Amino acid sequence: MTSLAALWSAESIAIIGATERAGAMGRLPLDYLQRFGYQGKIYPVNPKGGTVLGLDAFSSMAEVPERVELALIMVPAAAVAQAVRDCANAGVGVAVVMSSGFAEAGDAGALAQADLVMIARTSGMRLVGPNCIGSVGGKKKVLATFSPVFGSDSTRVEAGSLALVSQSGALGYGTYSLAQERGLPMGIAVTTGNEADVTALEVATEISHDDSVSGVLLYLEGLESVDALRGIASRKPTAILKAGRSTAGAAAAASHTGALASEDRVVDAAIKAAGAIRVNDVEHLLDAGAAFASERTLVGKRVAIVTTSGGSGILAVDALEAEGLELASFDPKTIAALEEVIPAYGNATNPVDVTAAVMSEPGLFEKCLALVAADPHVDAIVACFCVLTGNDVEKIAHALVATRKVRDLPIVVARTGAAALAPQGATLLNAAQIPAFPTPERAVRSLSILHTVSQPKRTNAVRPPLCAPLATPTVGANEIELKSALASAGLPIPESLLATTLDEALAGVTRVGGRAVFKAVVPGLLHKSDAGGVLLDIGADSAEDAFHQLKKLGGDILVERFVPKGVEALVGITGSALGRVLTVGVGGVLTEIISDVALHLLPVSADDVNAMIDQTRLAKLFAGARGASAADREAFVHLILRLADATRDWPAMSELDINPVTVLSDGAWILDAAYVAPGTQVDHSQVEHSQVEHSQVEH
Amino acid sequence: MTSLAALWSAESIAIIGATERAGAMGRLPLDYLQRFGYQGKIYPVNPKGGTVLGLDAFSSMAEVPERVELALIMVPAAAVAQAVRDCANAGVGVAVVMSSGFAEAGDAGALAQADLVMIARTSGMRLVGPNCIGSVGGKKKVLATFSPVFGSDSTRVEAGSLALVSQSGALGYGTYSLAQERGLPMGIAVTTGNEADVTALEVATEISHDDSVSGVLLYLEGLESVDALRGIASRKPTAILKAGRSTAGAAAAASHTGALASEDRVVDAAIKAAGAIRVNDVEHLLDAGAAFASERTLVGKRVAIVTTSGGSGILAVDALEAEGLELASFDPKTIAALEEVIPAYGNATNPVDVTAAVMSEPGLFEKCLALVAADPHVDAIVACFCVLTGNDVEKIAHALVATRKVRDLPIVVARTGAAALAPQGATLLNAAQIPAFPTPERAVRSLSILHTVSQPKRTNAVRPPLCAPLATPTVGANEIELKSALASAGLPIPESLLATTLDEALAGVTRVGGRAVFKAVVPGLLHKSDAGGVLLDIGADSAEDAFHQLKKLGGDILVERFVPKGVEALVGITGSALGRVLTVGVGGVLTEIISDVALHLLPVSADDVNAMIDQTRLAKLFAGARGASAADREAFVHLILRLADATRDWPAMSELDINPVTVLSDGAWILDAAYVAPGTQVDHSQVEHSQVEHSQVEH
Repeated sequence: MTSLAALWSAESIAIIGATERAGAMGRLPLDYLQRFGYQGKIYPVNPKGGTVLGLDAFSSMAEVPERVELALIMVPAAAVAQAVRDCANAGVGVAVVMSSGFAEAGDAGALAQADLVMIARTSGMRLVGPNCIGSVGGKKKVLATFSPVFGSDSTRVEAGSLALVSQSGALGYGTYSLAQERGLPMGIAVTTGNEADVTALEVATEISHDDSVSGVLLYLEGLESVDALRGIASRKPTAILKAGRSTAGAAAAASHTGALASEDRVVDAAIKAAGAIRVNDVEHLLDAGAAFASERTLVGKRVAIVTTSGGSGILAVDALEAEGLELASFDPKTIAALEEVIPAYGNATNPVDVTAAVMSEPGLFEKCLALVAADPHVDAIVACFCVLTGNDVEKIAHALVATRKVRDLPIVVARTGAAALAPQGATLLNAAQIPAFPTPERAVRSLSILHTVSQPKRTNAVRPPLCAPLATPTVGANEIELKSALASAGLPIPESLLATTLDEALAGVTRVGGRAVFKAVVPGLLHKSDAGGVLLDIGADSAEDAFHQLKKLGGDILVERFVPKGVEALVGITGSALGRVLTVGVGGVLTEIISDVALHLLPVSADDVNAMIDQTRLAKLFAGARGASAADREAFVHLILRLADATRDWPAMSELDINPVTVLSDGAWILDAAYVAPGTQVDHSQVEHSQVEHSQVEH
Repeated sequence: MTSLAALWSAESIAIIGATERAGAMGRLPLDYLQRFGYQGKIYPVNPKGGTVLGLDAFSSMAEVPERVELALIMVPAAAVAQAVRDCANAGVGVAVVMSSGFAEAGDAGALAQADLVMIARTSGMRLVGPNCIGSVGGKKKVLATFSPVFGSDSTRVEAGSLALVSQSGALGYGTYSLAQERGLPMGIAVTTGNEADVTALEVATEISHDDSVSGVLLYLEGLESVDALRGIASRKPTAILKAGRSTAGAAAAASHTGALASEDRVVDAAIKAAGAIRVNDVEHLLDAGAAFASERTLVGKRVAIVTTSGGSGILAVDALEAEGLELASFDPKTIAALEEVIPAYGNATNPVDVTAAVMSEPGLFEKCLALVAADPHVDAIVACFCVLTGNDVEKIAHALVATRKVRDLPIVVARTGAAALAPQGATLLNAAQIPAFPTPERAVRSLSILHTVSQPKRTNAVRPPLCAPLATPTVGANEIELKSALASAGLPIPESLLATTLDEALAGVTRVGGRAVFKAVVPGLLHKSDAGGVLLDIGADSAEDAFHQLKKLGGDILVERFVPKGVEALVGITGSALGRVLTVGVGGVLTEIISDVALHLLPVSADDVNAMIDQTRLAKLFAGARGASAADREAFVHLILRLADATRDWPAMSELDINPVTVLSDGAWILDAAYVAPGTQVDHSQVEHSQVEHSQVEH
């Protein structure tokens, strides 16, 4: 057992600040440990000595006769540092600081918190919290928490296959209690509070190695590592409720636990790339938990709906489309067999409507389910029923369990009705690992979750780089310098040369392929296009006039290869708390009208980039919308891979904006590029203007 | 009382097919009426006579000594027609046919159903169903249903301010039972089944005139009238769960109850235009019900969050942004006062985090709530708490109730925790009309619902038409004929003339304003552009060359006013089951890349059209994206109003496609138009091609 597992399976627990005083938080863990039957050693620590709830108290950690695995620190903030030091000296494995008054309380608190970490790290002890509500392990009845949930007679503590890790203590145990209410097998709950040392992801990583765990549920306010998340999700189905989606929410999260904010769409991309499920609220998190705890996988998408209520069946069909699943097409033999048992006013095709006749015809539902389950075109079943009560629900529950004997495929239930109408129904379904939901929409959504986590895991792309790394651009590098650097890495930049004389300009036109763009290069001339300083598609015959025209502006002429109109895309590489982020999307003039981009954390493979293109309207544009010829998608993908590789050593928080990349039917060209060094203020209006100015096609 | 109100408040009820036999459906309504204490007259009808559950049975309706308000028909399908006839002859007000085996069972059933309607209509009796589960009225204990929900000891029947009307019987009573489970005051429930005569909207209309009703909840499989819906929503807050969103779902709905399918986005537009709320599932429907039953209005958007859990507060903040509400900015005095009572590790700004200190400091939550409620910058409060149990929850509930004395503003609760932890909490909140939800997200969503239904109702636009109606185009009318008709209604069509000679062409250029488009008019030449048959921006100097060039193709030349490049929009008018639908959106080449349109049922006002523009990227394009000059939005709006008026007498199911309308900085021009007569097959590839061909700007 590594030390973090002590949070849910410690064999020895010290409670610093243990007291008998009614209403004191320091009483609760001891009370709970005793009440729920913890079998390990408990060491109450209280300077007053004596006994606490019948156990001998130790006046300090130094007196505790063994190295305890887990210590709970429940003393006022001012006394915490000493308690942590005592724990470290006593060789404690994990110390959990429940006390508040640290980073969440301002600068002084943050300093005090940093001290705690320093003490812990020096000794090798792990520190959970501060400002958390501890942890619970059902199997060994580790009640290392003061949550009032465990003071209620209605709360049970049992071994169970689901694990919950929550940065927020209150939300964590609220969620735990809701999980119990619906009979989910919640076995482990850990709250991590301010995460001064141990993070939720670290705890989840430890949990994900536990064979008895069927799934991991996370509530996070910050996400610090996509690699850690990928590891967790590769071992166990994982769902995440990530707070701070909105700007205001992210600010509130930062002030709450000091969580590091990432742009929400980066978080989205990271969770997706890790193969985890992002959920919308606590109920959705528990719906995912219900799917995980079913311990079934769903690789295919073909879903059969069997319903006693026509209305529920229609809602389920609607939900399939919304969730990206499919209505299974039955084998004709299945339909023929169903027609023999279903009343004429029902429906023997998918969605199968067995009607309320199930109430009067015993075995009808079971027969239909067996036929549907035996159909090889069916990957999963949604069973819907509404107003049935008591025995009728139990009969259906038994029928669903029996279906597993025909074929053990994923089954979910939508039961739209009060729990009190059929108290045994839920128990039967839970025992059979058949998740039940109050609406067809939630039932189907849980199948979709199961489908997502059942797909083969994608590993991070490892491939040899396409080119040597480029040196970091100098701060304030201009467009020409930047393009020249990119060109040196083999990236497709239209070649150009500076012409002072007409002869040079004419030679230049020939050298760039016979069709050129002339740009006036005049120091201080910011808005070249407005000043008439950009002339497009200049050939040998028009070069002389163009040269003289631009010369009037003073300065030299940049002669650049003319790139005809193609599909305009944008490519960006920016920094984030989670690593460098690649952005690919619709570029050029369309950028401002349709913000249509896909994000992916670097590194990426060609498959990744192709998937990003498919997520945006670039796919349609590349395919040749409206009779245009298809664009060279492969060249674009290659350009992006090479760009990512060439810039791999650039500073993590630098920003590279390429817009547009013009993708032709043969090849792709970078027409404009801007670099922003880390910490530099970006004048985006200026960047945009520069793009307009340098883009070769008329806008 | 009009006759439909008998469904929930009949003073006399006949039950045809009443029986004592245990397990028979015909026993249940009588059983329920007696058990729940119905005070009106009950007339069991059974050809065997005798007594049924202690009441004298009548052998036929003819023997019943009074005209009953409500008759429940619970006999096999084959006997229903006679029962309906008997009811009609006996002067029954409303007959409810519960029996199945009609339209939902195939063609023969549909014919039998049509007979029932004919019998009822001849006599003036209203007919509900067939294939429904009847109705319930809590105030008078009208249990006109056989739903098993009322056989459970856990079910209560009480007067309550919410009304539910559901096409689906099973889903309706399942929803009813869930409403009871969360303590919602569900007073009326009506199921309408196949809706052979009476529809859910008709029932809801009747309900919406009832002063004791606080809100209407609807489950519909088809939506037949937006006017009826607008009427209902103008009188009572209304929420709708409309099944058949997906194509497969719509097909299932049609097979289930024969519901007429409309394109889902038309349904969306209709519900929105009616001022009703469209919900996603039954829980969302009940969340809306909870908001309605609070009997509060929310006109502003500024929401205060008061939480005992930092995590819940952040989730609530995120939800505000997602739901279009705002985080209230407190008055500095409020913040100062909060700082005095909230612990340092909490937060005295919005979201207010009072922390778990509420458990140890009585009155803290109440004080904070009072301060927040008194702040004039606050329109509503979301109170969040998680793991609190028992008395702590009750204290908070009392504090929330007390807040109403400071200021009676909308308050919603997010309590993330099992009900069993604080059984009294829910009861207290329900009694105080404070809706409670398990997650902050759902609590905020309910406020958003309240905000939507609290906005001033928009009445249907009535304004004098801008022009006389145009005659319906002939089937197969070509573009030139169509444009000429539109021009005659004063719509802006670029003028054009046919030139055979060079002189005519030159005169034509002058006549159309000096800049023209030349188009070859050659019978049989389909792809003019490809054949080089379209020449743009021809002036006096280039006209002669252009004329000769096109003449080589054979045929005449169409000389048309040249419209320079502007913002391209599309305008469509199509038929639907709900009426004519106006579509406005991004047009021209962008149409295929970004499908970005807004829909509105006709008629529309200028405000409506402006709102549609604002829903799409047209707003941005019109404003002058990327330095372009602003487009003449007013001209575009006027064009649409005139187009709608000019075509007002065209067949309901005809289709008019205008794409593009080019909107310039001064004026807007219709460049292409296509008309599809009702029932005509549309070859959309051809339509699109024609648009490309005739559009005057280069693509």
